[in-house]
Amino acid sequence: MAAMVVKNRQIMLKDYVTGSFEVSDLQLHDGTCLLQLQEGTKDVLLKNLYISPDPYMRGRMQKRTNSYVDSFLPGSVITGFGVSQVVLSSHPKFSKGDFVTGFTGWEDFSIVKGESLRPLPTGNSFPLTHFLGVLGMPGLTAYAGFYKVCSPKEGDNVFVSAASGAVGQLVGQFAKLLGCYVVGSAGSKEKVDLLKSTFGFDEAFNYREQTDLDAALKKYFPNGIDIYFENVGGKMLDAVLNNINVFARIAVCGMISRYESAEPYAIQNLIQLIPKRAKMQGFLATDFSHLYPEVTEKVGVLLKEKKVVYIEDVTEGLENAPTAMLDVLHGKNVGKKIVKVSDPDINL
Amino acid sequence: MAAMVVKNRQIMLKDYVTGSFEVSDLQLHDGTCLLQLQEGTKDVLLKNLYISPDPYMRGRMQKRTNSYVDSFLPGSVITGFGVSQVVLSSHPKFSKGDFVTGFTGWEDFSIVKGESLRPLPTGNSFPLTHFLGVLGMPGLTAYAGFYKVCSPKEGDNVFVSAASGAVGQLVGQFAKLLGCYVVGSAGSKEKVDLLKSTFGFDEAFNYREQTDLDAALKKYFPNGIDIYFENVGGKMLDAVLNNINVFARIAVCGMISRYESAEPYAIQNLIQLIPKRAKMQGFLATDFSHLYPEVTEKVGVLLKEKKVVYIEDVTEGLENAPTAMLDVLHGKNVGKKIVKVSDPDINL
Ligand SMILES: NC(=O)c1ccc[n+]([C@@H]2O[C@H](COP(=O)([O-])OP(=O)(O)OC[C@H]3O[C@@H](n4cnc5c(N)ncnc54)[C@H](OP(=O)(O)O)[C@@H]3O)[C@@H](O)[C@H]2O)c1
Ligand SMILES: NC(=O)c1ccc[n+]([C@@H]2O[C@H](COP(=O)([O-])OP(=O)(O)OC[C@H]3O[C@@H](n4cnc5c(N)ncnc54)[C@H](OP(=O)(O)O)[C@@H]3O)[C@@H](O)[C@H]2O)c1
Repeated sequence: MAAMVVKNRQIMLKDYVTGSFEVSDLQLHDGTCLLQLQEGTKDVLLKNLYISPDPYMRGRMQKRTNSYVDSFLPGSVITGFGVSQVVLSSHPKFSKGDFVTGFTGWEDFSIVKGESLRPLPTGNSFPLTHFLGVLGMPGLTAYAGFYKVCSPKEGDNVFVSAASGAVGQLVGQFAKLLGCYVVGSAGSKEKVDLLKSTFGFDEAFNYREQTDLDAALKKYFPNGIDIYFENVGGKMLDAVLNNINVFARIAVCGMISRYESAEPYAIQNLIQLIPKRAKMQGFLATDFSHLYPEVTEKVGVLLKEKKVVYIEDVTEGLENAPTAMLDVLHGKNVGKKIVKVSDPDINL
Repeated sequence: MAAMVVKNRQIMLKDYVTGSFEVSDLQLHDGTCLLQLQEGTKDVLLKNLYISPDPYMRGRMQKRTNSYVDSFLPGSVITGFGVSQVVLSSHPKFSKGDFVTGFTGWEDFSIVKGESLRPLPTGNSFPLTHFLGVLGMPGLTAYAGFYKVCSPKEGDNVFVSAASGAVGQLVGQFAKLLGCYVVGSAGSKEKVDLLKSTFGFDEAFNYREQTDLDAALKKYFPNGIDIYFENVGGKMLDAVLNNINVFARIAVCGMISRYESAEPYAIQNLIQLIPKRAKMQGFLATDFSHLYPEVTEKVGVLLKEKKVVYIEDVTEGLENAPTAMLDVLHGKNVGKKIVKVSDPDINL
């Protein structure tokens, strides 16, 4: 029997992005997919259900060499984390109908290496979207970044920027669970309210409304900052450096204020690291991939006991993925941004 | 018997320094000292032999609050590390004639708290000046900074700035002893020669002659930098950040390029900490004071076995201490700058 050919919509990079990212930098292409796997591979053919526009993907749209992750190629399909359903499998670990997560394409159907996929936990009762957020890469980032990089302890004064986002909302809640004093910054009143009412931060402020970030931090941290979970960089980092305590830890997770900036703000106050004997440490979630099972289990329990909540912001339709990407870079997402590509197929 | 009054020359801060430091910011005052200790104290009266103009003292000449070390007061005697001889002692640990090191005044005679002094090791055979350098605070700084902050291992590629100075020359030699590849930067041909011929660095370069520090580092570190021992900050740090390896460590010891700079160079490349999962850690030697005995012993052995050499640059005369201070800030010192105040008194 000849293999079936199906329609496969694909989001492709038009060309390397040089200035600011625009929706038109990603283009929808009407392609096709042959529902067949090559012999002798351990490939899996996936039907993509949800995909994840993550800030780091912005860097992949530039022409870079020597980075920890390759650039996308102009004219090629964007890849990123996704939750998918197995249509065909040449890999012994996966069967038709299974739900998996891992790197996939921004398209309806993708063929990927089986070993790059994680099966969702058996008997999973969480929304599938959670595996792109709280139980996925952002969850791992928050978990490893906070517990393994920040050396946190009860009573620490913790500051989180981009605090309502995919990673930040979790860091703040982990810190509260440990008995820390936690303040977050975010870019709108809605997000600030969410931080205080839903995520239980002690305080939160809208950084866009602050003319003097240093003064804002002095107000919210009269006793100084012990831990800064750095998501944004730039001016905020400089203000934080002026307000750190002795032996402070700065976990450098991201610097999103730079990703779209042609002339990034340069840091003035780094010298504070010396009198404060402070540590700044960059990290990548990928170095902690072995902790996925621990995150799934421990954070899974916290979710079930409602000790941790998680807010997602779902965009409907693969065709809207470019806009979803822009939203993340411009702070229009409220919680973890996810794009729904399709519903699971009950016939698989 | 009435106590004797002796002449006491003193170097005082004229006023808080606001612009660049000038020799005239420190003034010689002809004072007197009563050779007597107050009853009920554990004070010690010292005859100062050598004093130490150290870069951190520049910061103390500014009006600052909330620093790890107080500002000097205008019209007061400058204080710093010194080697002295005990003239009178109310402290049980010290007797007349003993050689001690610790915080003292930039003057002929000082009265200090006994508990702040360290006796020199009994049977000491090192030059007294060594206790302001290799066996003193700079030695502790190099030892703790390299072994405790840099997490060094054999084969690491190590870069040291201000490499021929009081701290730098030791860091490079410690790194060579461990089997690292070591490159240093310094500000003159004489210093560069010293680094390669006397201190055994693998390579060295004059940063003042480099128009492109990034290119220079790429040349000397074709395999990237694993450890940067940071003494200068500014442009050099930015160039280093562009050349660090995965899991690099940056020990932030000092940023001397800022101490005299009204508009300090701001750092652009800090984002490299993320893809490189690198760590930057500020530290202060004072947090490692408990290691003085270990440094005296271990580095003492290395000196005796000639596995470590140490270059000092002695200025004669208390009256020349302000110039010696300027020399350190302008890179005119070759090795550890020390000021000789007087010879030991054999009658004590
Ligand atoms: N190291 C790793 O392995 C790793 C893994 C995942 C994520 N990250 C990093 O972690 C950070 C957060 O990622 P996420 O997935 O949780 O994204 P997110 O917070 O859900 O979304 C990004 C948020 O960043 C904020 N933002 C955008 N531009 C900004 C600017 N110029 N200044 C300040 N804030 C800005 C916006 O929130 P506001 O409304 O608050 O401005 C936006 O909603 C990013 O820097 C990302 O690169 C690192
Ligand atoms: N954290 C601590 O506890 C601690 C303790 C001691 C020292 N330190 C720091 O360690 C560093 C070295 O101190 P040290 O006692 O060993 O002094 P040093 O190296 O003996 O003397 C200072 C040297 O810094 C260099 N320098 C001066 N201005 C510079 C500039 N604008 N750019 C680059 N280099 C410049 C000069 O050498 P070149 O000819 O090479 O330019 C000068 O000789 C300083 O930053 C100091 O503050 C920190």
